Amino acid sequence: MIRLMGIDPGLRFMGWGIIDVDGNRLKHVASGVIATDGHESVPLRLCELHGKLQNLIREYAPAEAAVEETYVNRNGSSTLKLGYARGVALLTPAYEGLPVAEYGAMTVKKSVVGTGSATKEQVTMMVKRLLPGVAIHKADASDALAVAICHAHHRASAAHVAVGRRMA
Amino acid sequence: MIRLMGIDPGLRFMGWGIIDVDGNRLKHVASGVIATDGHESVPLRLCELHGKLQNLIREYAPAEAAVEETYVNRNGSSTLKLGYARGVALLTPAYEGLPVAEYGAMTVKKSVVGTGSATKEQVTMMVKRLLPGVAIHKADASDALAVAICHAHHRASAAHVAVGRRMA
Repeated sequence: MIRLMGIDPGLRFMGWGIIDVDGNRLKHVASGVIATDGHESVPLRLCELHGKLQNLIREYAPAEAAVEETYVNRNGSSTLKLGYARGVALLTPAYEGLPVAEYGAMTVKKSVVGTGSATKEQVTMMVKRLLPGVAIHKADASDALAVAICHAHHRASAAHVAVGRRMA
Repeated sequence: MIRLMGIDPGLRFMGWGIIDVDGNRLKHVASGVIATDGHESVPLRLCELHGKLQNLIREYAPAEAAVEETYVNRNGSSTLKLGYARGVALLTPAYEGLPVAEYGAMTVKKSVVGTGSATKEQVTMMVKRLLPGVAIHKADASDALAVAICHAHHRASAAHVAVGRRMA
């Protein structure tokens, strides 16, 4: 059995999800969204994301983390802000000693739904089906669980093991 | 007397500089560049930047930090990577309890050289003139000292004090 954490990064909403993986069996452990106040300064919001992620990692003790590579088709300022949040999403688990894998949105969708062009609704539906009993209140939490599920499927592959070893 | 830290963020090279400010008198304390290995994974490189910045803050105990707002006129992928580094530059001092101010490159140049269109060489020359005896080995360290000098000039103004108070 291994416990995995998925993270869907964002400065306003950072989705997170923890699952237990036992062979082919997946089990939902916990999930949610860390929200930061858009009226606060960016340094304080990054502190909040870092501190809360750190607390979650210490509370649930996942063995590995996976972060979604978000699209960068927006303007420079939005991309920079997304970069801040993704930087924290990559830094915090690595700083807590976890191997960190990254997956593109297409890979996550293909892994969870079976097609890279799946809609958000299809992803949420399949996350619910793959993790029976899970209650999802925010799409960001569903996306984070989807990244964790994707990592459960891919972590045995050579490339991602390599990332893990580099991190160790 | 107040001790200030300036940071010029970058994933490959993160410039840092510490100065003491006593009224109009400025004194160089220390400066340098944190370099990360481009062959390492991004999470590990962010860990290194975070850990080394944290050590510098604990060693030199600056009271406030200032970070340069770098330009985002490159492609999305470069902007995202710059975002990671800038995220760490904003997060780490804030997490250590320091108020963090941000200054655009034009403001820094205007504050140090007197014109927003100053060249990198002019900035380095004025940093050396304003901080007698300083030895600068890398342009990133000079830029970081320039941000610290800029903050020394601006920190009394209402806007930046407000940022400081929000951080406290």
